Amino acid sequence: MRLVDQRALPERLVFLECATVASLCSAIRSLAVRGAPALGAAGAFGVALAAHHTDRPTTVVAAARRIAATRPTAVNLRWGVEQALMAYRSGGARAVLGAARRVVADDIAANEAIGRHAVDLVDDGARVLTHCNAGHLATCGYGTALGVVRGAVAAGKRVSVYAGETRPLLQGARLTAWELERSGIETTVIVDSAAAGLMAAGGIDLVVVGADRIAANGDVANKVGTYGLAVLARHHRIPFVVAAPTSTIDLATPTGADIPVEQRPADEIAVVGGRRVVPRGVAVSNPAFDVTPARFVGALVTEVGIATRPWRSTLAAHRRSGFATGRADPTDPPDRT
Amino acid sequence: MRLVDQRALPERLVFLECATVASLCSAIRSLAVRGAPALGAAGAFGVALAAHHTDRPTTVVAAARRIAATRPTAVNLRWGVEQALMAYRSGGARAVLGAARRVVADDIAANEAIGRHAVDLVDDGARVLTHCNAGHLATCGYGTALGVVRGAVAAGKRVSVYAGETRPLLQGARLTAWELERSGIETTVIVDSAAAGLMAAGGIDLVVVGADRIAANGDVANKVGTYGLAVLARHHRIPFVVAAPTSTIDLATPTGADIPVEQRPADEIAVVGGRRVVPRGVAVSNPAFDVTPARFVGALVTEVGIATRPWRSTLAAHRRSGFATGRADPTDPPDRT
Repeated sequence: MRLVDQRALPERLVFLECATVASLCSAIRSLAVRGAPALGAAGAFGVALAAHHTDRPTTVVAAARRIAATRPTAVNLRWGVEQALMAYRSGGARAVLGAARRVVADDIAANEAIGRHAVDLVDDGARVLTHCNAGHLATCGYGTALGVVRGAVAAGKRVSVYAGETRPLLQGARLTAWELERSGIETTVIVDSAAAGLMAAGGIDLVVVGADRIAANGDVANKVGTYGLAVLARHHRIPFVVAAPTSTIDLATPTGADIPVEQRPADEIAVVGGRRVVPRGVAVSNPAFDVTPARFVGALVTEVGIATRPWRSTLAAHRRSGFATGRADPTDPPDRT
Repeated sequence: MRLVDQRALPERLVFLECATVASLCSAIRSLAVRGAPALGAAGAFGVALAAHHTDRPTTVVAAARRIAATRPTAVNLRWGVEQALMAYRSGGARAVLGAARRVVADDIAANEAIGRHAVDLVDDGARVLTHCNAGHLATCGYGTALGVVRGAVAAGKRVSVYAGETRPLLQGARLTAWELERSGIETTVIVDSAAAGLMAAGGIDLVVVGADRIAANGDVANKVGTYGLAVLARHHRIPFVVAAPTSTIDLATPTGADIPVEQRPADEIAVVGGRRVVPRGVAVSNPAFDVTPARFVGALVTEVGIATRPWRSTLAAHRRSGFATGRADPTDPPDRT
């Protein structure tokens, strides 16, 4: 497997070769590959990799389980693994590679569809705030939140983006700014905590983010900081939009309270550029995600269209008719890894 | 002049010698010394330094003006310079050193008084969120926001602190955590954007911050991010308290809209630990402060006591009876530097 090593950006565009499941798991854990839809593809190709190395189904299933367990929050990882396992069970090693390729093709098509569906949500001249990276790099291409921006630009609208830098790992500063700059879309990086003042000054017209998991009731887990932006957007009467493929909708998770939030290592915060900035002996809390209750979400865009209230029925309908369905449904218990 | 170089903390406790007004100005601009009350003292001693080097009053006044202009937002800097200039005009170089020493002594006494006045605002067992550093280091000792914490601890209450790391320069992670750890007060560092999720989870009982300038109507300029915390605190029904000496109240500034907000260099955000994290060609906006409208402030604690609504009259009364008054009033035009 060959992946963009997202840790090296924006200074260097480096590719990482993962020849084993163990090296893929390590790449996922260290965020060399990150972003919910990209993790879905990584999971599917990881199963293909395992199937390529062994003829023993139990070994493939065990590898699939290991991959799915590397990160707990983004449901797409488990979903991608499941897509591949389904194909493996029915058609063996050859089928699993096809399934993984389908995950990639479907994801790009889903993101492009998201961009088309969202066009009317973005006004000409809009100044869009986004958080973390939900672009090319977080997906198999085009992006979810940034797909909304790309779709509006493709429709001839002028759009500028404010990218929250996204501490601790700066996916906004490093990745979102990098890919938008390459796409010629005007971008300004701010520290995450500057968003509120910018909203108060009337500088933001729309907030668009991706998602790591959407519960059946519409609650959204996404990069830590998203929930605060949602509350602030509500306070300043700015539309708050979530963009995600239907593979991010997890009907088996009833509410946001049921979504496991990954705690990442303290040193992601405590050590900055090799320098220890938090004194030893001081605790650090580093949740990678937070949960935005559905009531703060103005619209949720998937490849099916724009989902709105009531969430439970519209999300179930999107899940049923989206690209994520018809192959494997992670809500089906026997297929759970 | 001998100052703690706050840039080197928490790794090293280094002192910086400023033998000239130029080196002091550079120390202020580079944030070797920062924090509104500490800047007040630095400004006063800077005038003493100038008076020590020359017998020409116009040179001293010009130096005072240069020092006061190094940073625009914190009014205490101008106020401290003014205290010293007043003394210089009436008593020459010897008097100015006395005035500067009085600024320091008054500030420590003010902070200790703030800590005593605020005791009833902090419940036993309170989990207090603070932003940036409003402690020993930001003042002449004891601290304003951290003075509230110290006062509660001194009164026998158990208090734990969540310190927002405070991007871009990490004063929360580096300075607040460092001084609280030395004081034996339980501290947990979080990224700034994790505060909202922590509030939603019921993990925060009180938000306490310092201030760089308080307008006559009660609007508060403080480190960027403060305004967002105020909105989030309101949303989660968590008390939001501002702690500052009366020298931070600027009756000559009618509202927050009249407070100049300093834009700091882009590289504070774009370069992290020597590594360029924002790609070249991408804009960066780096306002150092934001303004919290008075309606979000639950209580404002000065050395005089707890000020509450109506802000205009109570703040004027605090200013009149506080330590900041009776020597020089920065609202008096002829004394403006």
